[in-house]
Amino acid sequence: MQAHDLADLPTPAALIDEARLQHNIERMQQRMAALGVRLRPHVKTAKCVAVAQRQQAAGAAGITVSTLKEAEVFFDAGFHDILYAVCITPNKLAAAQALRDRGCALTLLVDSQVAAQAVVDFGQALPVMIEIDSDGHRAGVLPDADLLIAIGRTLHDGGAVLQGVMTHAGASYDCRTPAALQAMAEQERSRCVRAAERLRAAGLPCPEVSVGSTPTALSAQSLAGVTEVRAGVYVLQDLVMHGVGVCSPAEIALSVLGTVIGHQLEKGWVLVDAGWMAMSRDRGTQAQAVDFGYGAVCDEGGALIEGLVMASANQEHGIVAWRDGHADDGLAQRFPIGSRLRVLPNHACATAAQFPAYAVLMADGGVEHWPRFSGW
Amino acid sequence: MQAHDLADLPTPAALIDEARLQHNIERMQQRMAALGVRLRPHVKTAKCVAVAQRQQAAGAAGITVSTLKEAEVFFDAGFHDILYAVCITPNKLAAAQALRDRGCALTLLVDSQVAAQAVVDFGQALPVMIEIDSDGHRAGVLPDADLLIAIGRTLHDGGAVLQGVMTHAGASYDCRTPAALQAMAEQERSRCVRAAERLRAAGLPCPEVSVGSTPTALSAQSLAGVTEVRAGVYVLQDLVMHGVGVCSPAEIALSVLGTVIGHQLEKGWVLVDAGWMAMSRDRGTQAQAVDFGYGAVCDEGGALIEGLVMASANQEHGIVAWRDGHADDGLAQRFPIGSRLRVLPNHACATAAQFPAYAVLMADGGVEHWPRFSGW
Repeated sequence: MQAHDLADLPTPAALIDEARLQHNIERMQQRMAALGVRLRPHVKTAKCVAVAQRQQAAGAAGITVSTLKEAEVFFDAGFHDILYAVCITPNKLAAAQALRDRGCALTLLVDSQVAAQAVVDFGQALPVMIEIDSDGHRAGVLPDADLLIAIGRTLHDGGAVLQGVMTHAGASYDCRTPAALQAMAEQERSRCVRAAERLRAAGLPCPEVSVGSTPTALSAQSLAGVTEVRAGVYVLQDLVMHGVGVCSPAEIALSVLGTVIGHQLEKGWVLVDAGWMAMSRDRGTQAQAVDFGYGAVCDEGGALIEGLVMASANQEHGIVAWRDGHADDGLAQRFPIGSRLRVLPNHACATAAQFPAYAVLMADGGVEHWPRFSGW
Repeated sequence: MQAHDLADLPTPAALIDEARLQHNIERMQQRMAALGVRLRPHVKTAKCVAVAQRQQAAGAAGITVSTLKEAEVFFDAGFHDILYAVCITPNKLAAAQALRDRGCALTLLVDSQVAAQAVVDFGQALPVMIEIDSDGHRAGVLPDADLLIAIGRTLHDGGAVLQGVMTHAGASYDCRTPAALQAMAEQERSRCVRAAERLRAAGLPCPEVSVGSTPTALSAQSLAGVTEVRAGVYVLQDLVMHGVGVCSPAEIALSVLGTVIGHQLEKGWVLVDAGWMAMSRDRGTQAQAVDFGYGAVCDEGGALIEGLVMASANQEHGIVAWRDGHADDGLAQRFPIGSRLRVLPNHACATAAQFPAYAVLMADGGVEHWPRFSGW
């Protein structure tokens, strides 16, 4: 029996504020429309069909996934155009082909000759993109490397369908100013476009140029030469994105509802039943200007309480305190045992993954339950 | 169709080495028997009925849980004697009573007059323990506080069944030497026994004195006055426990199996398909003498490769590199695309929670699949 009222929800619970979710979806979609590119949201953040359906309804074209399980779940839910944006390995080709045999327009990714040759040897004219390294932070081929053309030839000459190039400027998470974000967005765009131009100059097809991360998507001034943008966390937003400078706390749609279970007044602590198992172990704001510990605390209604954070966490215990550490006897009166509060997360992808479902606070005051999935 | 051979497992996968698991169970059980106390394992680490059944078969008496869902799942699986070791809140009493009505010997915990009064007002003669603060790290009543006797009287006079006192010296995780661990174990023991003696001197019942954490349980020299010990992570062990000094890497029963998806040779990186979604975001060794990043790397057979770690991680990408950061072209030959490796986790409770099941490597070379659960 699921609660249909915020006051009746068992804790800890993952809340989504529906109005904020819809705002985030429309904000990004309108931005991409203005920049003249398609939006292919990364569904790894929410892993929730109902969320992706709203993104699609707002105008998104296809989805991006980070696991074959995500591809399978979303295909079964009616999504056909899917980019699996992690380099494929030989042992995953059969599962990918099984999805394609069922009608899924699944596109794969490679960044090496070994993987490209494995795709070709599989012999099924698979659609493939080449990952470009635009920021040195993870995977991909440098746009000016000979290897790029070599991989393109292996794929094209071998019978694969070379769909284009894609990159993800994860280094944008380390930017802290609008100027730095705009410069990183331009770097992501220009290096990926450069890779596409080199492939085309070599006589190879490259119809798609796919870039994206939430910080660069929300900062790009031009996306000339780009055909689609991928972004994920924008749909929920979080404190790390706030620290990067691309959302306000009032745009963070995900929070964790907890119940006060005790106090340690001489230390200024309020203990809640949401620990790191609920928040995740992500400490993404640790390296930012404002360290929110395990999260920023709001009252039960969702109003941010400036300076109150989850300073520490055990598995099922969260320790809420003022960020500056001062003791405050008044917290016991303000948050008595049994009262509830909400905690905005550092990293929505990590916090959401700790829960099997979302309790969605609808505009009419009701609560809907939207399942999400996890695992591989 | 589940794989019955290590070589056929899809990745990432959570592996349990059955021989190491059994060794860890017997090591702790024998230690508790030698010290003359019962062992009540905390099942929050593995959240797996098959693991707890092995602990019970080895001699464990009852279990400890950190959520009501754990209590429900384990009761349904045949476990009757359950301590819910997180302070109860008024809104959880009905669910706790529902379990008791079905025959579960569920014991609750309080550390405040508010919670004690709520238990009494519920009017069902609930069995309750009082949490003692033995190390200042989280919850509990100080053993010499007047509050301890007041809570005891509220419970006893109000018709609850005062079962005893319990404490968890989580500060033991910060110990680094055998002497410090032994001192912390003695502090945990003596402060909890002191609380029990004060309750008894006040004419209140206190049959049980429950202490425990994996580091103190594996370090205590005497447990005089203690009736039972609780410990959880010992059953799997992890790199944090190795850093604390209470297990060797060869005793860590949990690892994550990953497949190599690429290389960035000039940086000395091997990329695998196990990122932080598989390892968790736990960076528990960051503050220890040896920082293993997101985990210590072993070959596919489980042999530790000294110095090789998961230095960084994205959601579905792990970056494997030498701990000292030196580039090594040889890694591409040693770990070609499609090859596999295992990663020992920082924190077994956090890593295990990312998976819906364990692939258990049995002594006969086969693989069993043991489900685990998550959520609340």
